Amino acid sequence: MHFQLFPASTYINRRQQLSALLPDSLILLMGNEETGMNYRDNVYPFRQDSSFLYYFGLDTPGLAALIDTAKNETIIFGNELSMDDIIWTGPLPSIKEMANMVGVHKTEPYARLATYLQNKASVVKYLPPYRNANLIRIAEWLQIPLQEVSARASTALIKAVVSQRMIKDQLEVAAIDEAVSISTDMHLAAMQFTRPGMKEYEVAGKMMEVAYGAGGRLSYNIICSKDGHILHNHYQGNTLAKGDLLLIDAGAEQAMHYAGDLTRTFPVGTKFSALQKSLYNIVLRSIETASNMLAPGVRYIDVHAKAGEVLLQGLKEIGVVTGDPAEAVQQNVHTLFFQCGLGHMMGLDVHDMEDLGEPIVGYTDSLKKRTDFGWKSLRLGRELQKGLVLTVEPGLYFIPELIDRWKAENKLASFVNYTELEKLRHFGGIRIENNFLITDKGHQLLGKPLVMTAEAVEDQLSLG
Amino acid sequence: MHFQLFPASTYINRRQQLSALLPDSLILLMGNEETGMNYRDNVYPFRQDSSFLYYFGLDTPGLAALIDTAKNETIIFGNELSMDDIIWTGPLPSIKEMANMVGVHKTEPYARLATYLQNKASVVKYLPPYRNANLIRIAEWLQIPLQEVSARASTALIKAVVSQRMIKDQLEVAAIDEAVSISTDMHLAAMQFTRPGMKEYEVAGKMMEVAYGAGGRLSYNIICSKDGHILHNHYQGNTLAKGDLLLIDAGAEQAMHYAGDLTRTFPVGTKFSALQKSLYNIVLRSIETASNMLAPGVRYIDVHAKAGEVLLQGLKEIGVVTGDPAEAVQQNVHTLFFQCGLGHMMGLDVHDMEDLGEPIVGYTDSLKKRTDFGWKSLRLGRELQKGLVLTVEPGLYFIPELIDRWKAENKLASFVNYTELEKLRHFGGIRIENNFLITDKGHQLLGKPLVMTAEAVEDQLSLG
Repeated sequence: MHFQLFPASTYINRRQQLSALLPDSLILLMGNEETGMNYRDNVYPFRQDSSFLYYFGLDTPGLAALIDTAKNETIIFGNELSMDDIIWTGPLPSIKEMANMVGVHKTEPYARLATYLQNKASVVKYLPPYRNANLIRIAEWLQIPLQEVSARASTALIKAVVSQRMIKDQLEVAAIDEAVSISTDMHLAAMQFTRPGMKEYEVAGKMMEVAYGAGGRLSYNIICSKDGHILHNHYQGNTLAKGDLLLIDAGAEQAMHYAGDLTRTFPVGTKFSALQKSLYNIVLRSIETASNMLAPGVRYIDVHAKAGEVLLQGLKEIGVVTGDPAEAVQQNVHTLFFQCGLGHMMGLDVHDMEDLGEPIVGYTDSLKKRTDFGWKSLRLGRELQKGLVLTVEPGLYFIPELIDRWKAENKLASFVNYTELEKLRHFGGIRIENNFLITDKGHQLLGKPLVMTAEAVEDQLSLG
Repeated sequence: MHFQLFPASTYINRRQQLSALLPDSLILLMGNEETGMNYRDNVYPFRQDSSFLYYFGLDTPGLAALIDTAKNETIIFGNELSMDDIIWTGPLPSIKEMANMVGVHKTEPYARLATYLQNKASVVKYLPPYRNANLIRIAEWLQIPLQEVSARASTALIKAVVSQRMIKDQLEVAAIDEAVSISTDMHLAAMQFTRPGMKEYEVAGKMMEVAYGAGGRLSYNIICSKDGHILHNHYQGNTLAKGDLLLIDAGAEQAMHYAGDLTRTFPVGTKFSALQKSLYNIVLRSIETASNMLAPGVRYIDVHAKAGEVLLQGLKEIGVVTGDPAEAVQQNVHTLFFQCGLGHMMGLDVHDMEDLGEPIVGYTDSLKKRTDFGWKSLRLGRELQKGLVLTVEPGLYFIPELIDRWKAENKLASFVNYTELEKLRHFGGIRIENNFLITDKGHQLLGKPLVMTAEAVEDQLSLG
C-alpha cells in the first residue's frame, strides 16, 4: 500500500453519520484525477479530494463513490490494473482490496458509474466540483450543461459534510498536530538558515527539504518575502539584505494530507531594529489576546474584531492612529493596516472546506458573511465549538497603494494620522500565526511550539 | 517583473518563422491557467504552456494570443489588474507593458477573444489542449462539442511548431545547460546525503532543496527508489538499507522552464557489490556506446537498437542470454530487460512537445512509430539534426511479473537462460542517463558532467 489509512471503522462511522443526516439520498462523491502540468503525462503531484479522503481514505486517482442511503449501499467505482499496467507500476492492491480496507464491499468499473446516474440528474446530490475533469464528467453523466453543474450542487450535502468535517476527532487532531510540528521544523530551519545575500527562494527550498524529508509536502505554496505587506505574494526572487524583515507563511501537509499553517516574521542577519520590534510587539499582543479568547461559545468574528482593536491600540501608542480603538474597529480603521481575516478553519484543507463555500463553512444562517472591505476577507465568523481547528494570524501591512487611496480620500482622517503613517510607508508587513484546537473549556496550541517573542526569535536566528 | 525573458527579437523572429510556415492562417495559442489542488484557490505552482512560452515568453496565467498571418497581426488577450487586485498582489506590469517586452503591440481584454473567434471554427488553427480549462474554452468559443476539440487541432500548426521548437538556438542551449547543471548538483547532493536507515523521501527532499534553492523547480516528479525496476514509480516511502541500489531519476527546470533530466543508480552506504558492479558496467557500456553514436544523419531508433544490443552482449557475458546480440535485438529479446525507450527530446518540456504527439515529434512521415512491446515506448526515432537536444538513458530492469509471463510462455527460450535469469529476479533496476546537444559533426554533453563510472560514483558517495 502506498498510502496510510485510519481504521476502517473511522470511515464506516463517518459514512453512517452522513447517511443519518441525509436519508433517502443518492450521494456522489468524486475523487480527483491526475492533472497534467505542461503536458498530459507530466503530472502535478497527485492530490486526492479532501471530502473523498474523509469518507473513503483512498489516496489514489481514478475513483468515485456512490452512497445510496435509501438502500444502505455504498459502491466505489474504479478500474483494476491490467497486467500491462503492473509491469510499469509494480503490483498494487486491487480496487476491491482497497475498498475492503475502508469497509466498502461493492466495487464497479469506473465506466459503470454513468449507468447508475442515468436519469438521476434531479435526485443525485454532489459537491461543487473545483476540478474541470470532474465538472466535465458530471455534466456528461447527468446530461446537463457545463455551466449548470456548480449551481446544481447540493446545499443539503454541503451542509452535512461541513457539519461532520468541521469537528475533528482524536485521530484527526493527532494528524494535524503532526503537520503543525513539521511546519514548526520548517520555520526553525528557515530561521537558522537565512543569511544576508541569499535569495528568498533559497530559504523556501530549505523549508521544502524539511517538509518532504518528513514524509509530507507543502499544504500551500510558501510565502517567503521581504515584501510581507503584499498579501498574495508568491514571488521569491528578491535578494535578502541585512535588516530586511522576512515574512514566512509556510506549512506542511503530513502523509494523510492534514495541514499545518504557520507564519513568522524575522529580521535577516541581525536583531529587530527598535521600530521593527515595536511593530512586532503590537502584532504579538494581538495574537496573544486573540488566542486567549478562543473557547466554545465565542464568535470568531468577535475575536477578529478584538485582534483588530489591539492592533489599533498599539498603533495609537506609536502615534499612527488616534481615538478609541474599539470605536475605530467599528469604523473599519483597522482595515487600513489589517486588510484580511484573522484566521480560518484547518483540516484536510489548509483553508478547510473552502471549496464548499465560506458562507456555509465559516458562517451560519443567523450570522452571515459581511461584504465590506476587510470583513469580506474573514473566512470564519461563526461561534466556536469543541473540536474545531483553526488559525489565528493577525498582521500589520503597510500597502503604499492603499495608503495613497485612503489619504487621497482623506478617509477616516479623525482616526488616522497620515503624516505619521507616511513614515511607515515602506515598512512592509508583519504577521504571526499559530494553529489551535478548540477544547471543552478553551483551546490548545497545536504542534511543537514555535518561538514567537522577538527575543526568542532572535535567539533562534543566532543558532544558525 | 516576476519572470525572465529573452530579448524581444527572439520572440519576434520565432513568430515570423511561424507565419512564414503558415501563411494566410489564424493561429490561436493558449496560455495556461492556475489549477486548484484541493480547492480552487489553493493552486498548484503555476506552469505556463511551453509553446506559449516559446512564442511569447510571458510566464503568467490568464493569457492567450491570436496570430493572423494574413493580416500580419498579433494580439495578446488578458485582463489588466484592478486597483483592488494591486492591493493584494502589489504593482505588476500591465498586459500592454508585458506584451511590448516581447514585441507585441496590440492587446485586448480576455473576453474579447470570443468575438475574434466567432464563426471561425473552420479556419482557426490551435494546438491540442491538455488542460481541461483550455478544452472547455475552445469548445465554447468555437461552438463545438468538447469531444471534438482535440480531433480538430491543426496538424499543420503542430508540424510547424515542432519544426521550430525541435531545433534549439544558442539562448535555449544555454538555458538547458543551466538546467542540467542544477540537475547535476541535485544528484551530487543526493549521493553525499544518502545513508542507510533514511527514507527515500528524505533523499528526494534534499534534491528539492537544491532545485528550488537554485531558483528552479522540478522538471518532473522525482523517481527515487530502491525498486528501480518499477518504471512508473513515484513511491518514496521505503527505508533504505545498506547495499540497496538506489535509482534516482531527477531533473530541474531552470527559471525560464527549460528542463534537465538525469539518472544515476548507486549503492546505499557502501560500494557496489560484485554483481551490482557487473550489471552497472553493462549499462555504462550501453550509454557510452549509444552516446558516441550521436551525430547528424544518424537515426535515433538505430541508436536505441545498438544500446539494446550492448545490453544483451553484457547479459550474454554473465550467462543470462545467449546467441548473437544483434539478432537478439531483432527478435526483441532486449525488451525483457529494457522495456522502455532509450531517450526523448528535451527542451521547454522534459519530454519535449509530448502533448503535440510523439508520432509527429519523434518520428516522420517515412519513419513511423512502431507499435510492438518495447519499441512502442521509444519516444524518439527520427534522424538526428544539429540543434536537437535529447536524453540517452539505457537501463536494465528485472520485473518479476514480466519474467514470469515470458517464462510461462517459454518466450524466446533459445535466447534467454531462464534458470540464470531467476537469480536476478529480485535484483531491481539500473538506469544511467545523460543529456546531449546534437552539434555540426557530433554531440556535446550538456551541463556539468555528473560522475558516471562505478568508481567515480563510489568516490562521490564517500564524500558524504
